Amino acid sequence: MTEVILHQPLDMHLHLRDGEMLRTVAPLSAHSFSGALIMPNLVPPVTDGQMLRDYRQQILEAIGDETFEPYMTLFFKPEYDFDFLAPLAEELTAVKLYPAGITTNSEGGVSGFDVEELRPALSAMSELGIPLCIHGETGGFVMDREKEFVPIYEELAVAFPDLMIVMEHITTAESVEALDRHPNLYATITLHHLLITLDDVAGGMLRPHLFCKPIAKRPEDREALLRVALEAHPKVMFGSDSAPHPRHAKEAPGCAAGVFTAPVALPALAELFARHGKLENLQRFVGTNAQENYELDPPKKKVRLVDTPMKVPEKYGDVVPLFAGEEIGWSIASVE
Amino acid sequence: MTEVILHQPLDMHLHLRDGEMLRTVAPLSAHSFSGALIMPNLVPPVTDGQMLRDYRQQILEAIGDETFEPYMTLFFKPEYDFDFLAPLAEELTAVKLYPAGITTNSEGGVSGFDVEELRPALSAMSELGIPLCIHGETGGFVMDREKEFVPIYEELAVAFPDLMIVMEHITTAESVEALDRHPNLYATITLHHLLITLDDVAGGMLRPHLFCKPIAKRPEDREALLRVALEAHPKVMFGSDSAPHPRHAKEAPGCAAGVFTAPVALPALAELFARHGKLENLQRFVGTNAQENYELDPPKKKVRLVDTPMKVPEKYGDVVPLFAGEEIGWSIASVE
Repeated sequence: MTEVILHQPLDMHLHLRDGEMLRTVAPLSAHSFSGALIMPNLVPPVTDGQMLRDYRQQILEAIGDETFEPYMTLFFKPEYDFDFLAPLAEELTAVKLYPAGITTNSEGGVSGFDVEELRPALSAMSELGIPLCIHGETGGFVMDREKEFVPIYEELAVAFPDLMIVMEHITTAESVEALDRHPNLYATITLHHLLITLDDVAGGMLRPHLFCKPIAKRPEDREALLRVALEAHPKVMFGSDSAPHPRHAKEAPGCAAGVFTAPVALPALAELFARHGKLENLQRFVGTNAQENYELDPPKKKVRLVDTPMKVPEKYGDVVPLFAGEEIGWSIASVE
Repeated sequence: MTEVILHQPLDMHLHLRDGEMLRTVAPLSAHSFSGALIMPNLVPPVTDGQMLRDYRQQILEAIGDETFEPYMTLFFKPEYDFDFLAPLAEELTAVKLYPAGITTNSEGGVSGFDVEELRPALSAMSELGIPLCIHGETGGFVMDREKEFVPIYEELAVAFPDLMIVMEHITTAESVEALDRHPNLYATITLHHLLITLDDVAGGMLRPHLFCKPIAKRPEDREALLRVALEAHPKVMFGSDSAPHPRHAKEAPGCAAGVFTAPVALPALAELFARHGKLENLQRFVGTNAQENYELDPPKKKVRLVDTPMKVPEKYGDVVPLFAGEEIGWSIASVE
């Protein structure tokens, strides 16, 4: 039997939603992760201290007695300034920037990326040491959106050299290449973008449960992502982007974007890293890199993963997970 | 009011299925078209004279007293030879070749495209004047499959210079470019590939009713298709590839490929050609080119289309059409 023990695994990009969905999915992440960076794109989005505290409280109630730290984020607004952000700096781990209308509940996001317009907010974040997480897609053709956004990432990285900028859920070789060109550019990578390409979404039957934003790209893009994930590039962190939607919103004439991976993420990552002979790097990809980059001190948790297969449930509540009904080669043996 | 009158409109690529689905959809095509090239990918596929005659009879029963000629096809098998095909030559209009497993009900298709292996069948077709229609996709990455198939089209066109080869439902600029390089290469283009790109399928919500094979490609591909359709390039013919699936097979974890356009095709084409100021070319795109290329003499039918809007039904039977519940700017005023 092969095993790997992960200390304080972290998911640096997680959608927990609110209400009943929160109560369904939060315990699943809280069971196997020490903490997660919680996305703020609720309806309405989390845009001030009170909302952030309320949401954090809801999350803590939903996870019950699991040991789990929700690292909170605000939904970026250009009007944020030093006076607004300074009192919140201790309570938030990052600010998440969405281009307007680019994904689920992102209607209130940024239109255009004028550096001078963004300067007050981003200078304040830079000064306060608050990282900026970006969903980096333009409004262009679906296969080009992220590639077209890379120059914007680079412009921001140069304009705000002391600001930690995280390219969220990167899906292209171009984003991977940008990583090493700027000391302050970081990235998260999802599980599903390490596993699938557009072929899996739309090459055979169309598979709505694999539909997400950014959409899965070409085989050579996945290879580039795999390379930096498997080597646990120090600026690359696991972020599941686990994004639950009820089944009726996925198997529909207009299918919502998001893959629900939280409950299978660690076993599937262990299987992937083991298959490539890179198990020794999993700890860094799924925890240590994030701890160091974000300077986090997550609650103690020790997750033992073994190469004993697990059967993935068809549904969690009304949400269909990645690998629903299938077997994964690895499973969680214990969590301490 | 603007109008256009079409004489003997033809749909040179149509899926009518069988059984109850046939009875639902066949009258919709038969109402507005003079004839259609009927695809043979039933389960089991149409592979001999008896099956072809039985299927033709089923179609005629399904359309009732509409004036409509089903132009029949056989499902290509490499073992077809002159002796097999010669007695059928009068009853069939074309033979349809599917690469194995490439689309709905294509499991028994061709694996590999060895010219020598295909020579007996294709030489016989060439001698008998039977056109070869091909679903031209490789097993490669979904956005590259048709582009990768173009060299195979070209190899066949060169190897069998007297064989009429129709590149079915082309979706790429590369296929358009191949058209003029070989005198015996022709093409059909669907309505939906003139209207949508991958952005419409997967750029916003995922839209299963727009999912088809070949998948819709890039904006520059659609532009190339539009150019030759709107000018009614003499080797380009309308073929709807209208492919009905029951709703539960589309809004599902594994969504079947196919867009159901038959009942809206002529009004939507009229609207498209009118918008581009090319109404005068619609007759050739949707009838005359096919008559000349295939040497057909379709039953008389005169379809008058006017720029009076029509509301598209949400469903025909259990099949969701293109533009379900939406309005099209044009409609059929009369059919004589």
